[in-house]
Amino acid sequence: MKRSIEDTPIVFIGAGNLATNLAKALYRKGFRIVQVYSRTEESARTLAEEVEAEFTTHLEELNSFSRLYIVSLKDSAFEELLPSIVANKRKEALFVHTAGSIPMNIWEGRTEHYGVFYPMQTFSKQREVDFSEIPFFIEASTSEDAELLKAVAATLSERVYEADSEQRKSLHLAAVFTCNFTNHMYALAAELLKKYDLPFDVMLPLIDETARKVHQLEPKDAQTGPAIRYDANVIDNHLSMLADDPEMQKLYELISRSIHNRTN
Amino acid sequence: MKRSIEDTPIVFIGAGNLATNLAKALYRKGFRIVQVYSRTEESARTLAEEVEAEFTTHLEELNSFSRLYIVSLKDSAFEELLPSIVANKRKEALFVHTAGSIPMNIWEGRTEHYGVFYPMQTFSKQREVDFSEIPFFIEASTSEDAELLKAVAATLSERVYEADSEQRKSLHLAAVFTCNFTNHMYALAAELLKKYDLPFDVMLPLIDETARKVHQLEPKDAQTGPAIRYDANVIDNHLSMLADDPEMQKLYELISRSIHNRTN
Repeated sequence: MKRSIEDTPIVFIGAGNLATNLAKALYRKGFRIVQVYSRTEESARTLAEEVEAEFTTHLEELNSFSRLYIVSLKDSAFEELLPSIVANKRKEALFVHTAGSIPMNIWEGRTEHYGVFYPMQTFSKQREVDFSEIPFFIEASTSEDAELLKAVAATLSERVYEADSEQRKSLHLAAVFTCNFTNHMYALAAELLKKYDLPFDVMLPLIDETARKVHQLEPKDAQTGPAIRYDANVIDNHLSMLADDPEMQKLYELISRSIHNRTN
Repeated sequence: MKRSIEDTPIVFIGAGNLATNLAKALYRKGFRIVQVYSRTEESARTLAEEVEAEFTTHLEELNSFSRLYIVSLKDSAFEELLPSIVANKRKEALFVHTAGSIPMNIWEGRTEHYGVFYPMQTFSKQREVDFSEIPFFIEASTSEDAELLKAVAATLSERVYEADSEQRKSLHLAAVFTCNFTNHMYALAAELLKKYDLPFDVMLPLIDETARKVHQLEPKDAQTGPAIRYDANVIDNHLSMLADDPEMQKLYELISRSIHNRTN
């Protein structure tokens, strides 16, 4: 009987934002998620129920016969738990992590087949994302393992690339600026608007256009506003409006200076 | 003969990013743009041709008989040119500026009818924007003037609000965070990717999802990544990757700390 890629049994280790989104997407594509591990029973059970899997909160109870183990833990927890994760598994088992920041060689000497399966996106449990446009970056210990991971990723997305650990580290750093720091700018704007009793949703057209613009223009060519013109009147005025919040004032000043230094 | 709002003759003073986008949008809605002023002939002529208007580079040649004068100049130039702008016009002429940062009372004592016509968006000449979703904030010296400005804005957008100068100043400050500072985060990511020879467009799905998320979640609830978890391993690693660029390193550090301080 010919087996399809979706018959690959998968164990998820971790049930956080990324694991939840990825497990559900793979489940919907027909993959068999055999087990979900999480430190807390609630997280493990919640995700397991959504993908019709077993769950456990004990690493020694991990299914020993799965083909693919997808580890999606906080970077700090991962190193600590790694020995228990690989213990007592089949020789053919393929272990991957999903972290942009962790090099592949963390697996080296621990198990024979390993790799990285990094979907570069921001995941929250409260929100389902469209995987078809997410770039996946794959790295593996053997070319066969890489092919398997690419085939799994290709069921979800058309944008599947191989990237080594150095490249992935750079992508991850750029993604922190692109996503986390951008989102923090939204959060600071939301704080300001709340202070002045104005609704945040009035900003949404501006947020959307700022994002759309860089599909067409390079970010430095898309820049507008007082910092790039270095309009000292406006900048000084804004700094004085932020006088009661030294942290936000400092950020305003440094980012404005950086815009002026780098964009002109 | 009943006149429609589109018969209001308009003079544009300034031919920059905002003026160019606004004049073209009003022209397309059937407004008669009678004249465009700009300090440089090239800008004045380019926009004037696109909206079938006269152009001038001399403020003393401004059309004296127009109904509406829309001033869209750099904040610093505006104050200097204001006396020449209002000189020798009809008593009924309505003068507005388009700046979020300038209070309405800059007009006070200079002319009888005045106001502010602030479309809160990021405008670049190279890119046409969809005005229908742009919020317009209107302020005027009389309620009749406010009604006229609201009627003009309503031909372009369904989101027309009255806002006083204090509210507009706050919106503008929030918009600098939302748009200019966000765009700078994109620009810093683009620099990093260029350094590592990776294409910027791989970031676009992440940029789009980061923007879409805050349609559904509050920005602080949408946050992900190493700073909110305060994953010191990852943060230290990123800081050392930025060692050759102290400005970017400082920004990384301060924004990460601010995320951690404010989002938890």
